[in-house]
Amino acid sequence: MIIVLKPKISENDVQELVNKVESFGLTAHVSKGAETTIIGMVGDVTKVDPKQLEVSPVVERVMHVSEPYKLANRAFHPEDSIIDVDGVKVGGDHLALIAGPCSVESKEQVIAIAKEAKAAGANMLRGGAFKPRTSPYAFQGMGTEGLDILVAAKKETGLPIVSELMSADYIEEFNEKVDLVQIGARNMQNFDLLKEVGKRCTKPVLLKRGLSATYEEWIMSAEYIMASGNPNVILCERGVRTYETYTRNTLDLQAIPVIKRLTHLPIIIDPSHAGGKWWLVEPMAKAAVAAGCDGLMIEVHNDPEHALCDGPQSLKPAKYTELLKQVGAIGEIVGKSL
Amino acid sequence: MIIVLKPKISENDVQELVNKVESFGLTAHVSKGAETTIIGMVGDVTKVDPKQLEVSPVVERVMHVSEPYKLANRAFHPEDSIIDVDGVKVGGDHLALIAGPCSVESKEQVIAIAKEAKAAGANMLRGGAFKPRTSPYAFQGMGTEGLDILVAAKKETGLPIVSELMSADYIEEFNEKVDLVQIGARNMQNFDLLKEVGKRCTKPVLLKRGLSATYEEWIMSAEYIMASGNPNVILCERGVRTYETYTRNTLDLQAIPVIKRLTHLPIIIDPSHAGGKWWLVEPMAKAAVAAGCDGLMIEVHNDPEHALCDGPQSLKPAKYTELLKQVGAIGEIVGKSL
Amino acid sequence: MIIVLKPKISENDVQELVNKVESFGLTAHVSKGAETTIIGMVGDVTKVDPKQLEVSPVVERVMHVSEPYKLANRAFHPEDSIIDVDGVKVGGDHLALIAGPCSVESKEQVIAIAKEAKAAGANMLRGGAFKPRTSPYAFQGMGTEGLDILVAAKKETGLPIVSELMSADYIEEFNEKVDLVQIGARNMQNFDLLKEVGKRCTKPVLLKRGLSATYEEWIMSAEYIMASGNPNVILCERGVRTYETYTRNTLDLQAIPVIKRLTHLPIIIDPSHAGGKWWLVEPMAKAAVAAGCDGLMIEVHNDPEHALCDGPQSLKPAKYTELLKQVGAIGEIVGKSL
Amino acid sequence: MIIVLKPKISENDVQELVNKVESFGLTAHVSKGAETTIIGMVGDVTKVDPKQLEVSPVVERVMHVSEPYKLANRAFHPEDSIIDVDGVKVGGDHLALIAGPCSVESKEQVIAIAKEAKAAGANMLRGGAFKPRTSPYAFQGMGTEGLDILVAAKKETGLPIVSELMSADYIEEFNEKVDLVQIGARNMQNFDLLKEVGKRCTKPVLLKRGLSATYEEWIMSAEYIMASGNPNVILCERGVRTYETYTRNTLDLQAIPVIKRLTHLPIIIDPSHAGGKWWLVEPMAKAAVAAGCDGLMIEVHNDPEHALCDGPQSLKPAKYTELLKQVGAIGEIVGKSL
Repeated sequence: MIIVLKPKISENDVQELVNKVESFGLTAHVSKGAETTIIGMVGDVTKVDPKQLEVSPVVERVMHVSEPYKLANRAFHPEDSIIDVDGVKVGGDHLALIAGPCSVESKEQVIAIAKEAKAAGANMLRGGAFKPRTSPYAFQGMGTEGLDILVAAKKETGLPIVSELMSADYIEEFNEKVDLVQIGARNMQNFDLLKEVGKRCTKPVLLKRGLSATYEEWIMSAEYIMASGNPNVILCERGVRTYETYTRNTLDLQAIPVIKRLTHLPIIIDPSHAGGKWWLVEPMAKAAVAAGCDGLMIEVHNDPEHALCDGPQSLKPAKYTELLKQVGAIGEIVGKSL
Repeated sequence: MIIVLKPKISENDVQELVNKVESFGLTAHVSKGAETTIIGMVGDVTKVDPKQLEVSPVVERVMHVSEPYKLANRAFHPEDSIIDVDGVKVGGDHLALIAGPCSVESKEQVIAIAKEAKAAGANMLRGGAFKPRTSPYAFQGMGTEGLDILVAAKKETGLPIVSELMSADYIEEFNEKVDLVQIGARNMQNFDLLKEVGKRCTKPVLLKRGLSATYEEWIMSAEYIMASGNPNVILCERGVRTYETYTRNTLDLQAIPVIKRLTHLPIIIDPSHAGGKWWLVEPMAKAAVAAGCDGLMIEVHNDPEHALCDGPQSLKPAKYTELLKQVGAIGEIVGKSL
Repeated sequence: MIIVLKPKISENDVQELVNKVESFGLTAHVSKGAETTIIGMVGDVTKVDPKQLEVSPVVERVMHVSEPYKLANRAFHPEDSIIDVDGVKVGGDHLALIAGPCSVESKEQVIAIAKEAKAAGANMLRGGAFKPRTSPYAFQGMGTEGLDILVAAKKETGLPIVSELMSADYIEEFNEKVDLVQIGARNMQNFDLLKEVGKRCTKPVLLKRGLSATYEEWIMSAEYIMASGNPNVILCERGVRTYETYTRNTLDLQAIPVIKRLTHLPIIIDPSHAGGKWWLVEPMAKAAVAAGCDGLMIEVHNDPEHALCDGPQSLKPAKYTELLKQVGAIGEIVGKSL
Repeated sequence: MIIVLKPKISENDVQELVNKVESFGLTAHVSKGAETTIIGMVGDVTKVDPKQLEVSPVVERVMHVSEPYKLANRAFHPEDSIIDVDGVKVGGDHLALIAGPCSVESKEQVIAIAKEAKAAGANMLRGGAFKPRTSPYAFQGMGTEGLDILVAAKKETGLPIVSELMSADYIEEFNEKVDLVQIGARNMQNFDLLKEVGKRCTKPVLLKRGLSATYEEWIMSAEYIMASGNPNVILCERGVRTYETYTRNTLDLQAIPVIKRLTHLPIIIDPSHAGGKWWLVEPMAKAAVAAGCDGLMIEVHNDPEHALCDGPQSLKPAKYTELLKQVGAIGEIVGKSL
């Protein structure tokens, strides 16, 4: 961390700041320029809040020169993390292919879709049992009954289950029934939930990027889970909010190389939620794999016109099958195996 | 709600959509143009998800023509709601003046600030006991001990207490100790928390706008609380995320007239968190009152340089006292009394 | 275009609006619901400004149901446009591979880079002679001398030339020396320049997306050029401005399927400017081709450390050569030939 | 400017960077920490492009510690600039009140509005003769004829004229007829126009903020005009583009204190274009004055329902008269005289 001082300040002021820095258990390096004096802080700065220094009237700015995260940081863990989701590996040269309906609607539906998804090449099954909805009047999901349907579908197909957790009250139930516990975009900074998931959740966590979360905030949320005891975090980019409204969100595929550079965690892409239109899913899924992602989460529905939620962004199984063929071919070029 | 059909579709397709609309218990009005056919849906459309119609291959677009919220809607409740916070009225021509430190740090600190804030003219005391922090390594607040300090400060000054709730586990404790329960920006779409607060919280709720929440999403979150049983919601604008990084966030004061037009709920402004710099607080506080807001929430600290959080955006009591004088004069011009 | 009226308005008000609609030479279809009355406008609405109707106190909203552009519209021109840039085809199943330095710095530099780019597989040469720079004190480009260097490089390699035009004063010089005339992101809504380019420019135009331009605004700027007489427009996505600052801009690859759906114009991607870091170029270039783009514009520099501009985002020729191999393989899978 | 080096680099690498810094005519201060080495650059860094340093493989980041602008910088010109617009002072404790129609439509219209605006208290007249329109099919303004109508209105009322310049070809005509030359938001980074206006325009310039321009970019565009020879620049905030679409743009009133801190130039606010709805104008105009702005530019139209452009955001003269009364009272509180 660097403290940039205002021009023309006294020796006394500099000394006072040096004392403050040292009171944090850090060493201060003063560098005096003709116009600007700079104090470099050396030591473990993760617990220093830059605002505590910025408040000083002689400080112009405080700047980070290193990242505030440790456990997720590639610098301290150069190898790719490979996360095991009930036998399916995510990360490295493995490609997670998660498919399924937006919400669980009935046992018949989920089992039918799961079978078709598996036949197409999917290796995990997604389905929402607890649904975060903007409106209190919209369908809120089947809850526990929905989870049990997913468990039944797993029994039929062997596909591990991905489902969203919205409240810490259900962690133990998810530990029992779900294989990869999703934290949704709207809860990415629900810090109490992150801590509880870190402490009590025994399964890997799929952490979606918040609607307007920076890379650093997103990684810091992963750090919350990891620092609370659960090291198995997979990140999921699902589009960010911009001024453009023709698409539901703007899919940020630069997130793939950025996350891989900053962290050792796997990153998968959800092209269904990003665009909100089924005809965007196919080109974006292929693009994501070409860019080096570790997996795709895609909404597949056998009857999108009667889906209770997100029908317009769901692929029919035939389209999905066709897509996975091209995805496989592109994956081979960039070093990913299905 | 209006369904715009694709060009050149058959009578059959139109009829099928009409049937679908009627299956929702609504009436369909078909309007056939030379190029475009439109179906108007008449009835209670709050429970219809536009996506269920958009998925049809003959549908171009589905457009709302009325708002999806009811309880918060000004159209069904033309009078301003005036919320009573332990005797302090918020809304109408009343101006809530909430002041206090970002976080509760010690009994002496909070009582000293509370006394000075009251002397300056504040009518409520804020203080964070549970703190949402981006980093798991940052100070997370004093918790229950912090709430008890706030209660002690209320005993000394009589000022009602505002504090942030981060988990439903603490609702009963907040009901006992806090007068206005804040839901933070990062939890604005933590729907499980909103529902529990609606059901179990007996105190009014201060709902902060999410970092990139639209007006409609924000109002829908108020609707969640209201529909779950708690009608006493006050909205709080605290800056939204934009591309500009010189300020912490961009304060959206247009929110004041917009919220007042769309809803009957009071809206207050938090200029401290919006800009993140103390010298922005004063001009923005005055601007907010000139624009017709129902209150101001301002960070006041007697020793910002040693504050454990958000020092750079805190005003010293002398500055706050001076500010309230100008705020009072502007309030008078626009019809608000201190 | 649809006019949604406010609730409870009189027959007279409706009739007045119908008269206004008819005064524009359009037909009005009135559809009366229980709560809302809607007027559909039928005819050529491209010249109607919705604001002229919204101003009426009985109008709630005016909504487009069709696009405001005609010449660029896929609906009226279902076939892909294929643009000929001095023999190199752009669009359809052709892939434009534009490479070269950010700015022209010297004859030796440009010719050396052009030869290496050609050897790697590039089929066009880019180079800035007139540079749009945020600071008036930064290097502003070599101007005419720079164009002449590009002409010399074309003589050596045969590669058609792409360069940015910043002022209508130079259109004739560009007609003579340049093969594809670039309009930069910052001039995307410099409407006087667009009109002059439409009228006087005899070469195809490469229209970059503005920093925060919507798809519709971007297409409307193409429409300006086309309506002024030049039908040969290629669109170029180069990243949009968001709240994320780790990358220079956020590359919006959904633009590829969206632009292809809405228009018949080719779209190419500039991954170098989007991310601003060389290590983002490779994954994003592959992603763009996988998503179906019609070309890539990539900064290639033989000595990025001494480049006068944008060194950090430039690839060295060896990296570029390697990249084009993977790009070619992915292109084959999605139906594009090098 | 500070160069942050990557961890664990050699003495040689440091020395090479020091040489590079010195080759720019600057002095290098090396500060070696346990983990990070930092090089401070001392001297005139305005001409150094950080990217030329960032490209080095041993450089982590290059950070500005001082602003890249000089002529506009408050640091080098602590007094407020007061700009004289044909006798009307803008800046200091003066309040510019610019009113008039969006576009000039006829002589009768403009003269009628000008008289009413003057009677209400306006001290300048605005009117668009050359109109930047998103669509090539929309009304593009009356051009020279429009300017002549404004001149006639000035003759009748004495109000100085503000009008937008879109092409350098008209600078001499504007010098003759217009008193304050507006550069629109879409041309804020049309650098060729800025340079020509700096060189050839003899009147003060009103520089609107671009739709997604940062404060620094906006000030740099003022710097372009000033560095090219015209020191008389007034800045105008008119809303920035965000994800919120209910309002046309998000008005950023924090721009007022920020611009006043960073520069010595006056800043005025255009609440009409920001919100796009007439009922937002009044509260935002009052807020802007309370926040300390140097003027207001407001669209006033005597017949908004038949205005050729932007009717919905125009105030009728009676509303404007009423508004100026409150604006005057608020101005007095914050030290501005009408």
